[in-house]
Amino acid sequence: MTITPTLKKIERKSLVSPKGFTATGIHCGIKHKKKDLAVVISDVPASVAGVFTTNAIQAAPLKVTKDVVYNTKKMQAILVNSGNANACTGKQGHLDALAMQQLAADQFDIPANLIGVASTGVIGEPLPMAPIIHGVSKLKANDELTGALDFAQAIMTTDTVMKSTSYATTIDGKEIVIAGVAKGSGMIEPNMATMLGFITTDAAIESEDLQAALSSVTEKTFNSITVDGDTSTNDMVLVLANGLAGNDTLTPAHPEWSTFVDALEMVSQDLAKLIAKDGEGATKLIEVNVTGAVSDEEARKIAKTVVGSPLVKTAVFGCDANWGRIIAAVGYSGTQINPDTITIKLGDILVVEDSEPVKFSEDQAMNYLKQHEISISVDLHHGSGEGRAWGCDLTYDYVQINASYRS
Amino acid sequence: MTITPTLKKIERKSLVSPKGFTATGIHCGIKHKKKDLAVVISDVPASVAGVFTTNAIQAAPLKVTKDVVYNTKKMQAILVNSGNANACTGKQGHLDALAMQQLAADQFDIPANLIGVASTGVIGEPLPMAPIIHGVSKLKANDELTGALDFAQAIMTTDTVMKSTSYATTIDGKEIVIAGVAKGSGMIEPNMATMLGFITTDAAIESEDLQAALSSVTEKTFNSITVDGDTSTNDMVLVLANGLAGNDTLTPAHPEWSTFVDALEMVSQDLAKLIAKDGEGATKLIEVNVTGAVSDEEARKIAKTVVGSPLVKTAVFGCDANWGRIIAAVGYSGTQINPDTITIKLGDILVVEDSEPVKFSEDQAMNYLKQHEISISVDLHHGSGEGRAWGCDLTYDYVQINASYRS
Repeated sequence: MTITPTLKKIERKSLVSPKGFTATGIHCGIKHKKKDLAVVISDVPASVAGVFTTNAIQAAPLKVTKDVVYNTKKMQAILVNSGNANACTGKQGHLDALAMQQLAADQFDIPANLIGVASTGVIGEPLPMAPIIHGVSKLKANDELTGALDFAQAIMTTDTVMKSTSYATTIDGKEIVIAGVAKGSGMIEPNMATMLGFITTDAAIESEDLQAALSSVTEKTFNSITVDGDTSTNDMVLVLANGLAGNDTLTPAHPEWSTFVDALEMVSQDLAKLIAKDGEGATKLIEVNVTGAVSDEEARKIAKTVVGSPLVKTAVFGCDANWGRIIAAVGYSGTQINPDTITIKLGDILVVEDSEPVKFSEDQAMNYLKQHEISISVDLHHGSGEGRAWGCDLTYDYVQINASYRS
Repeated sequence: MTITPTLKKIERKSLVSPKGFTATGIHCGIKHKKKDLAVVISDVPASVAGVFTTNAIQAAPLKVTKDVVYNTKKMQAILVNSGNANACTGKQGHLDALAMQQLAADQFDIPANLIGVASTGVIGEPLPMAPIIHGVSKLKANDELTGALDFAQAIMTTDTVMKSTSYATTIDGKEIVIAGVAKGSGMIEPNMATMLGFITTDAAIESEDLQAALSSVTEKTFNSITVDGDTSTNDMVLVLANGLAGNDTLTPAHPEWSTFVDALEMVSQDLAKLIAKDGEGATKLIEVNVTGAVSDEEARKIAKTVVGSPLVKTAVFGCDANWGRIIAAVGYSGTQINPDTITIKLGDILVVEDSEPVKFSEDQAMNYLKQHEISISVDLHHGSGEGRAWGCDLTYDYVQINASYRS
């Protein structure tokens, strides 16, 4: 993508960097010791957009939050717990998700139909309401860096690092800030929405246009990462836009519309890559770039197939330039290709041309694969479609983490 | 399936148990020490059927062998090497596969267009012809058990056990024997044909009907296993039927047609389960039975999705009754389900009913999951479709094997 010149990555306070947002996170007792309850609040009702998991089994909080996104069409606060997904918990689970919404409404004096809720953690165990009831009564959001960090920590499960990013840009001469935080490192797969992501901005934009912008960037960002092919029951990305930056309301007809969409894409891409890099047990971020495909969509499909192949992932872990597994994954991606015109590079090292091996230095390739960010390029020479996907290596630690998750 | 009463599993001599087949396997020097070159020969030209990988990148030996199956429509011998896949090797690879065919033709005095060839091993390295030329000149097939064992060993790559099975049945009052041998433990995925499998029988049947029988059982057997979701460039199943049992030629109109198809299905199912159980690094065979789906096809798709989920596979490895991952996999299988009517059992232990958790003994479940053959049953209560799939757990050893395969 071409980056708008005014777009600047900023440090500042993450989720609370845009005007009029506060946040916090605490330990309430769902987990043993770590933070497990978080809230982010806008000073005023915000426009809202959301993308949700495509899993046919959907957790209770998704149903409650979708109701706010699709019916209220505004949102002012999001209450999130980690340690329990409130999924496959039946009627009681639905009542518990509604109770979370009501607790936040009472605590923050906001109408319940403006509150989103999200849960992440173990599936199929009843949500422990006592610690949540007590916890919500202790939540005091603030607009300091600590509030944003506490929020980012409290939504983590097997994540090893907090994931947040912020950008500033200028629209109508006003500074617009857009920031995001995410969690997720297992059950990460292409079919939206495969993690929790919360994005705040002070841009002025109606919910409908915000949804259009989010949908347009999701396919190229959150839907282009894969860790293990498992699509969760719970995951969602929400964007709140409270308008406090004072720009003219953004619409696709606004001359700086693409400035906003670019900023949203950069935030989404940063979060997506952070999630892929922190894939359970991962030691490396893998980026696969595909060119020369029949269409952009097919290019992305090929990129996701390659980056999702367990054999490619283990080869990258083992620093083994085993390009045969890469070309095999291209072959089984279910796309239109010419089997005789494929070029493959590991970083800058050409390893396959016209689908045949090229002599290369194994030492040089092994040294390249020891990096923490690996790029694989596949040119199909079969069209003009381009696409990218991100994933991570498959390691002993992935097995360890997932063989004992509940215990 | 209902087994024909006359169908009996037999021990005897595996691949050479049917009348008129000989085999052998030797070390020729593609691998360091292990056997790497094998041949099976029928005394007379046999009817032939084959299924081949759906990967768009197909290895040279597949192209040569398909020509025999589709054009000659008879086959008398199959020459197989392990240690090198002769895939992505360009024009030279094709010439090398043809050379293998010609070498076997000269050595065994059989027309080249009656010789199938197969290769398995590393992708993208030129086939070392010197050891193959020398090796073929040393091949002396026999109809003893040692010949069959040598063949089974010589086609192995990362396999830890030989895989063979034999059945006898009666058709037209004649004893018909059908035997099979297979290799494969990584790059194993549903979309045919995901391993090497060679089946011999002395039944009399024309190639066209043999192909129909093979195709009808493949979906329920070889295509219903998954180890890691990677579909190979090389894999195939071939059946040779030489007619020496002396039955009346089998056709779908023959009163004992289903006797033959059942025997072929049992051989194929045994081989498929042996491959799944010997999945790279696996400690357990996992069988998933799905009932109550909209169709048999959708039931198989769900079964394959569950058995292929890395999170389910690691949970089984860790003896963790984490049914949430099972129901999540059902949910993302891309099939028609009712999210509220799902029942799940681990062995006989009911863990989910109406898509909600059921109280069960974690100790009992953990003890069950310590077995080496695990059964997961999913009833969708949404139709009458049934299907099964087989796979294995995901372990540290899978990572180890695949992080260092080439070195």
